[in-house]
Amino acid sequence: MTYKLSLAAALAALTATAPLSAVSTTEDVAWDITEGLTTEVGQRMPGTEAEARARKWALSKLESLGFSNVREENFMMPTWVRGEETAEVIAPFQQKLHITALGNSGSTGAEPLEGEIAYFEDFQALSDAPIDEVQGKIAFVDHKMFRAQDGSGYGFAGPARWFGPNVAAKKGARAIIIRSVGTDFHRNPHTGNTNFENGVTPIPAGALSNPDADTLYRMRKLTWGKPLQVRLKLTPRNIGEQQSGNVITELPGRDQALPPILIACHLDSWDLAPSAFDDAAGCGIITAAAKKLKDQGNQPLRTIRLLWAGAEEVGLWGGKEYARKYANQPHAVAMESDFGADRVWRIEFRLPESEAMTALKQQLTQAVSRFGVAASAIPATGGADIRDIIRTQNLAIIDLQQDGTRYFDLHHTPDDTLDKIDRKQLRQNVDVWTAVLGIIANSDADFSMGEYQ
Amino acid sequence: MTYKLSLAAALAALTATAPLSAVSTTEDVAWDITEGLTTEVGQRMPGTEAEARARKWALSKLESLGFSNVREENFMMPTWVRGEETAEVIAPFQQKLHITALGNSGSTGAEPLEGEIAYFEDFQALSDAPIDEVQGKIAFVDHKMFRAQDGSGYGFAGPARWFGPNVAAKKGARAIIIRSVGTDFHRNPHTGNTNFENGVTPIPAGALSNPDADTLYRMRKLTWGKPLQVRLKLTPRNIGEQQSGNVITELPGRDQALPPILIACHLDSWDLAPSAFDDAAGCGIITAAAKKLKDQGNQPLRTIRLLWAGAEEVGLWGGKEYARKYANQPHAVAMESDFGADRVWRIEFRLPESEAMTALKQQLTQAVSRFGVAASAIPATGGADIRDIIRTQNLAIIDLQQDGTRYFDLHHTPDDTLDKIDRKQLRQNVDVWTAVLGIIANSDADFSMGEYQ
Repeated sequence: MTYKLSLAAALAALTATAPLSAVSTTEDVAWDITEGLTTEVGQRMPGTEAEARARKWALSKLESLGFSNVREENFMMPTWVRGEETAEVIAPFQQKLHITALGNSGSTGAEPLEGEIAYFEDFQALSDAPIDEVQGKIAFVDHKMFRAQDGSGYGFAGPARWFGPNVAAKKGARAIIIRSVGTDFHRNPHTGNTNFENGVTPIPAGALSNPDADTLYRMRKLTWGKPLQVRLKLTPRNIGEQQSGNVITELPGRDQALPPILIACHLDSWDLAPSAFDDAAGCGIITAAAKKLKDQGNQPLRTIRLLWAGAEEVGLWGGKEYARKYANQPHAVAMESDFGADRVWRIEFRLPESEAMTALKQQLTQAVSRFGVAASAIPATGGADIRDIIRTQNLAIIDLQQDGTRYFDLHHTPDDTLDKIDRKQLRQNVDVWTAVLGIIANSDADFSMGEYQ
Repeated sequence: MTYKLSLAAALAALTATAPLSAVSTTEDVAWDITEGLTTEVGQRMPGTEAEARARKWALSKLESLGFSNVREENFMMPTWVRGEETAEVIAPFQQKLHITALGNSGSTGAEPLEGEIAYFEDFQALSDAPIDEVQGKIAFVDHKMFRAQDGSGYGFAGPARWFGPNVAAKKGARAIIIRSVGTDFHRNPHTGNTNFENGVTPIPAGALSNPDADTLYRMRKLTWGKPLQVRLKLTPRNIGEQQSGNVITELPGRDQALPPILIACHLDSWDLAPSAFDDAAGCGIITAAAKKLKDQGNQPLRTIRLLWAGAEEVGLWGGKEYARKYANQPHAVAMESDFGADRVWRIEFRLPESEAMTALKQQLTQAVSRFGVAASAIPATGGADIRDIIRTQNLAIIDLQQDGTRYFDLHHTPDDTLDKIDRKQLRQNVDVWTAVLGIIANSDADFSMGEYQ
């Protein structure tokens, strides 16, 4: 009998721990998704078989987590893929440089291009330069980016990548190399998209790692500004229209007539890394939060729709497709997680003016303060994948701003790997998202912002 | 008159500042050498034209600093050069890995090798493994290295590189990949030499960056140990006997009959980086200290000989050549700087037992304590380039141990660039070296250790 009692007690203990392990599984969803995408899929370049593998993985993962109506919504888009990429100084010194092509870069062709560097301190200097300082040269834009918690260094340094190649091409540069738009000091250049105006022929456009840009800068100093000759080979290709797609699912609400909450991340990534920060973690965070609400057993009032967007990195194609397809379906609030995996430090709103909304803001601000999240008077602007639906429908937005201090160390580099994720901070993201979603998905308040003014 | 007086005063002031700027020039010698080697020369792979350019640069630099008898002492040695290097997991997942070949690695040939991974937790596990667990496989050694101020993590992790390929080859492995012998978390694998026994055919041997080794580890976990298939291409070549050389100069002492002090660094480097830490900074430090003594105007009692050794990285060829050539010329003390550019934190001795030596140790310990350098009871062992002359002549040694906490973040990676140098710590090295050299080069004590026992 004693023995039987002990067995019964043991079984009871096992049963008692079952809910605990269920909770623990839920808590690891953000990590599991981030680990899975970075390990079982890897890089997820838009329009390639790797992004297709990622969608397949995502569908299977979301099904296994018990979400409803898990689906793939495909679309076609022009696709650019990386080729070889080498650069070296050939005179008056000799040194190899670490370079990576920018998205939409032109090709040098198989035969490397050799030319003289024209130095520009930043994008403004390139923009201001007379044509004869640029024409026939390889423009080098040497802006330096500083780290900031809100990522604001991107606003200063970004234009060199976004617009520099187009400006240089229009002034007759043979190619352009820019200092990486990044805050780290490793030999890993930062890629990212650039764009050429219609009618402007794309020139080869690459980014140097910060240490390599430093080298060019010092060479110029040590030669007293004498010409530096560089040999450059970039052979990317446009491979035409290819298939990409969004992965979408819902956590259905009690009142299907109420407009849903849209929460987004992007599934695609640049090709240089498994891209844990950008944006596997974002998909992990929003999905883990929705899963937590589901597991709490109280079906929320409003439907929560999850958008794992495709082809964000190369032109926000997934977000555009979503906005096109769901243009006539009203939404309540749009939110996105796409700024790494470090803690949420600030909550920002774009909500209609009303008593109900003032009360809601107070409730939300109070709910997140226990996780160390500060209030902010800066209006929310949303993320890249919800930009178009926000514009189309003039939507309410809540931004859970992540600490971006080290985001631009990793952004678009080979270094964006799983080891960079701080699991405690990842968990804080999920906690904050769960708290916010729990409140807004159970609110029957009117979130509509009216027509654009 | 007032005007003339003012002018005279101004001229006097100018003259008065002249010595200040002279001092400032002297103080920058370590930086100038490190900056010059990393910028004007770059990587300095032994036996290649790059190392020859470095010798030319060194001769010119040492001449311009006013050293005597600046000379190049050349020798021939077998030379290995890097080729292409790519690796990717092809099943059950697909992902590119960042790999670099180890020095003396065999080649896969132009056609990549595909094979199954055999996992070993560390070098010991590979050594203990029965042949049938290794034969026909690609061995993967997954030791993890931890950082330590005295660099002692190298002793645990190093054998995987030094001996792992030979052991794997003898057990019939088709190739070996190891986790980098390094403490960073960037996508920059650490190269370095390995060696195969006579009669053992070199197999392809490469190092993965830590994040890539993590990926393999996690893939194994997520597939429950099911086989991982890897595709590997490494095409290094042996290009036969090539010329390398030492660069040597002296600061002549007042008493040419007294054995000189030998201070060393190495001029060559691995090919992946301009190699500021390993070992441009070492050459900067020892040379700046000697220059300071010279500029103080009191000619030291003993000659100080500077050895900028060649071909250290690939087999200590420069140190061996020095030991051969100077075997019959007595030396007093040997010292080397080859552990980066961070501060000296500890002084260690290998000196004969005598009253004079006890007093000298006290004097040295006291002299360096003002720069934050601690005493130590660990015997000095010297550096790689003085190893052979120390063994040949049983020499006295003083080690100025540098803080190695971040040394193995950079060691043998593309990331060993000038930006990693902390100028304050570099200057502290020069101060400590100057203090020590000033004392021992003016000591007429007997440093001879006698015959080896």
